[in-house]
Amino acid sequence: MLKHAAGKNLFDVWAPNAKTVRLVAGGHEYVMEQYDDAAAQGWWRAPADATAGKADGVPYGYLVDGEGPFPDPRSRRQPEGVHGLSSTFDPSVHEWKDAGWKGRSLKGSVIYELHLGTFTPEGTLDAAAGKLDYLVDLGIDFIELLPVNGFNGVHNWGYDGVLWYAVHEPYGGPAAYQRFVDAAHAAGLGVIQDVVYNHLGPSGNYLPKFGPYLKSGEGNTWGDSVNLDGPGSDDVRRYILENAAMWLRDYHVDGLRLDAVHALRDERAVHILEDFGALADQIESGTGIPKTLIAESDLNNPRLIYPRKDNGYGLEGQWSDDFHHAVHVNLSGETTGYYSDFESLSVLAKVLEHGFFHDGSYSSFRGRHHGRSIRHDLAHPSALVVCLQNHDQIGNRAIGDRLTATLSYGKLAVGAVLTMTSPFTPMLFMGEEFGASTPWQFFTSHPEPELGKATAEGRIKEFERMGWDPAVVPDPQDPGTFQRSKLKWEEASEGDHARLLQLYKDLAQLRRNTPELVDGGFGDTSVEFDDEEHWLQMSRGNVRVVCNLGDEALAAPLKGSLLLATDPEAALDEETLTLPGASAAVVRVY
Amino acid sequence: MLKHAAGKNLFDVWAPNAKTVRLVAGGHEYVMEQYDDAAAQGWWRAPADATAGKADGVPYGYLVDGEGPFPDPRSRRQPEGVHGLSSTFDPSVHEWKDAGWKGRSLKGSVIYELHLGTFTPEGTLDAAAGKLDYLVDLGIDFIELLPVNGFNGVHNWGYDGVLWYAVHEPYGGPAAYQRFVDAAHAAGLGVIQDVVYNHLGPSGNYLPKFGPYLKSGEGNTWGDSVNLDGPGSDDVRRYILENAAMWLRDYHVDGLRLDAVHALRDERAVHILEDFGALADQIESGTGIPKTLIAESDLNNPRLIYPRKDNGYGLEGQWSDDFHHAVHVNLSGETTGYYSDFESLSVLAKVLEHGFFHDGSYSSFRGRHHGRSIRHDLAHPSALVVCLQNHDQIGNRAIGDRLTATLSYGKLAVGAVLTMTSPFTPMLFMGEEFGASTPWQFFTSHPEPELGKATAEGRIKEFERMGWDPAVVPDPQDPGTFQRSKLKWEEASEGDHARLLQLYKDLAQLRRNTPELVDGGFGDTSVEFDDEEHWLQMSRGNVRVVCNLGDEALAAPLKGSLLLATDPEAALDEETLTLPGASAAVVRVY
Repeated sequence: MLKHAAGKNLFDVWAPNAKTVRLVAGGHEYVMEQYDDAAAQGWWRAPADATAGKADGVPYGYLVDGEGPFPDPRSRRQPEGVHGLSSTFDPSVHEWKDAGWKGRSLKGSVIYELHLGTFTPEGTLDAAAGKLDYLVDLGIDFIELLPVNGFNGVHNWGYDGVLWYAVHEPYGGPAAYQRFVDAAHAAGLGVIQDVVYNHLGPSGNYLPKFGPYLKSGEGNTWGDSVNLDGPGSDDVRRYILENAAMWLRDYHVDGLRLDAVHALRDERAVHILEDFGALADQIESGTGIPKTLIAESDLNNPRLIYPRKDNGYGLEGQWSDDFHHAVHVNLSGETTGYYSDFESLSVLAKVLEHGFFHDGSYSSFRGRHHGRSIRHDLAHPSALVVCLQNHDQIGNRAIGDRLTATLSYGKLAVGAVLTMTSPFTPMLFMGEEFGASTPWQFFTSHPEPELGKATAEGRIKEFERMGWDPAVVPDPQDPGTFQRSKLKWEEASEGDHARLLQLYKDLAQLRRNTPELVDGGFGDTSVEFDDEEHWLQMSRGNVRVVCNLGDEALAAPLKGSLLLATDPEAALDEETLTLPGASAAVVRVY
Repeated sequence: MLKHAAGKNLFDVWAPNAKTVRLVAGGHEYVMEQYDDAAAQGWWRAPADATAGKADGVPYGYLVDGEGPFPDPRSRRQPEGVHGLSSTFDPSVHEWKDAGWKGRSLKGSVIYELHLGTFTPEGTLDAAAGKLDYLVDLGIDFIELLPVNGFNGVHNWGYDGVLWYAVHEPYGGPAAYQRFVDAAHAAGLGVIQDVVYNHLGPSGNYLPKFGPYLKSGEGNTWGDSVNLDGPGSDDVRRYILENAAMWLRDYHVDGLRLDAVHALRDERAVHILEDFGALADQIESGTGIPKTLIAESDLNNPRLIYPRKDNGYGLEGQWSDDFHHAVHVNLSGETTGYYSDFESLSVLAKVLEHGFFHDGSYSSFRGRHHGRSIRHDLAHPSALVVCLQNHDQIGNRAIGDRLTATLSYGKLAVGAVLTMTSPFTPMLFMGEEFGASTPWQFFTSHPEPELGKATAEGRIKEFERMGWDPAVVPDPQDPGTFQRSKLKWEEASEGDHARLLQLYKDLAQLRRNTPELVDGGFGDTSVEFDDEEHWLQMSRGNVRVVCNLGDEALAAPLKGSLLLATDPEAALDEETLTLPGASAAVVRVY
């Protein structure tokens, strides 16, 4: 959209309302000049002597109208945290070894969501790279990293980001990020990066000093809305789209998970999601490697995944919570809050057949009808990314407890089967595959005592209002909350943990070897169920997935061969499948 | 969407947060009961004895939790104004005489926009009906009425409406409205009603006493946003859609002009504009009479007019200001404010060829890029409703002056030719056809002195900020401002007024008799122009429209027959069209 050259040179900065901008770099101060190209209005450039030899490792910042120095809005590194100076980083120094990498497409893939800080004891990109063989062995195709951009403090989920171009230094910074992606590709794994463009974190956001990045007075749940359609928004959109391009190009990332796109308020005729879709396609056709964009959306609006030629936004995928809620409620019996509409296996059946439960149906949580149905001719079920658990569904619970805290092995196994054999793209949350006993709690490490206190109190009060004893809700600022959330890898080889891990491996392999589980479109899945006896059978081609969610044994009339069973006592004789309580099986019928 | 019966009976009312609702009707008070149907939650019904014999002319209102009585949100009549009691009105009393009416489609039509209060000396529907023969003679197809819903005071543009189901009593109320539509149909004219669903006026809005009609804290230019997607919004949408259906069904209206749809904030997967489109199609297929929905939109988003099967909203048309601005600037030379981007005939040429000037181009007024181009395969140019002048483009000027105040007859005639031969659907503003000398100013008649003062001061200060002498800006509350805005019909038969009127008649007839002026799609119009010599030639099939916007005579090489010329000195000899300054001609070439 914007064709001017400004923004391409080291130290170029957009500050349209500033009267003066000075660069502080390597201990010297330089007066910056405005570009004289009318199309580059608002952009400033540094004198030639400022840039000489400063491609890498030079501390710098900007004085805007005498205030500052502030970090660069496009800072790649923040060695001293988000309030400190930026550091130049030259992404071309890394020698990529992934020339043979052909990429992965979403269809047929399994995603593994992980948070770098709690995935390994060290909490770094390099340590995470040490687990790549494990993930390959598990049968994963994509790793999805929770946000790694620059945020306040050391430990954080990542959604408090304020410097979207930086890689959080305690994770290893941008050089480590490049090493990680390179290693993932060498192992045959794609990398999807979770990126947040709908708000900025509560501390370290200096963007308003530079320009109209935010719409004041128009907020969402997390803060001021980003200015996507108001005056000056061209360069804000460019800021966002170039950031997306940075991950996809400079860091060889295979896809982006776009956080909470329902909070991207954009009344332009071309929604920024459509710009994202076009950008990814452009990079894909330039590199020959699939680039996968997945929206986190609570809109149940299939326009996001319809092709742009059909007036959709052309994203490859979107998260679909309806699957999670339907499985969660039917496994756990929990029906509070937004779970209330999801009782009954009929909901799960509708989800498996049609994708959305809320396809125009009433949502009591929202107090209105919600969503619309997905057109069979314009989307494939693999465009819906579904999960049994994810960082939000665990971490946003009062005590951050996983399903392991309340469900038996048998129920966890049924959940695994439903997720991994659904028509959709399954996503696991780190540790789910071995039934990790560790919680994944909400943690922060704001250095400012007042902000830390406000964050902790806000969190605890929210759950107190919902009837929780405040004493049991973990303090997000307590370092123990972060420590408790780290995986205990030694569990993975023990008892039922190891058994569940093997089941996930078997399911991933079954999925890979069974075209019926991947190929069918919307309309090709049919489901029978019985709410009283609490069983459900999903038919996909000649494959039957039978789930016994009840406690009593089940006998189902089926002729075929047993492809997988979660319980050793499951048996398929000539015409009957027998399933013990809380178990599931996959059968190929004749 | 909502299938329950509540809302169908006389005196049914939606008041979801009320603890008690009492009906006051015909001087008696009745205790209302909640519907016991879960789907009709929030709806109240009157006891049977309350409704007996009260279909017509009974004053009534509601006491909500003891407050009131308030007028009925669905009131059809407000004989004592918007703060008084409602009056029952039975729309089935009128005996329709329009059984032979087949309707009109937008393609090939000319629209005539009129404000009832200032169209005739009497300012009533019955008086307006007296002008129908004149409009037929002019060559009009649709009359578009500025809003007639219940608003505060006697005189008002109509955009301060608070009772969307009522017909403003001083215009004659709902019975007169039925007579008017019937008479229009008898004369062969369709009626389009301007309806406002994006905000409520500043006085007489009792809707918040009844339910969550508005989103508090989320406003647009004119007030709180209407709750289209928040909790409780199902019944708010129903309120709006049933209002649309009322005009189209009960009042036999042929179309709706949806005011400022860019202010309809709706994040649902099915935008309410799409619901409008589906509703109109449903009524159209039920009645066999075309129902035409036209959005006023500043979004330059062609999705509004794309078919719903192609994931558009399926409206028949939308206003397009780009045509107005391009013609206005090139005729008047005015380039202030939002006119600044429209200088040069290249802009007008782009508009004539492609519909939108802002099709992703930079809008300096908005400080960002704007709009997107229209797909040739999904829309026809007639879907864009364009004008040389309309109520906003005149009335929102400081002194409400028409083009007649500043342009010569010759320039007005060129404007008429451009508007009436464009590929789009032309709309005239009452009096434009005879070059009315009367202004059309902003007028109100708020009975509350404080509101009146605030309205007047706000208006005058707005123009003072733009550099106007506040003394020349008319006081909207001054009855003289309203009186001055009334048409002087005696002008129509005098001198250049009569000459212009004849030109408009000739143009309407030419348009009707020349398929090239109506049929061609996007891509079938091509334009040449010269900014220096200030002329423009539009080719549509074998028809050439040549406009000389300069002062010097123009000689254009053309062979053909002269279909129309605005100046008697225009001449077409064997191979040259000669046009005096400020004149235009239409030629069929061989």
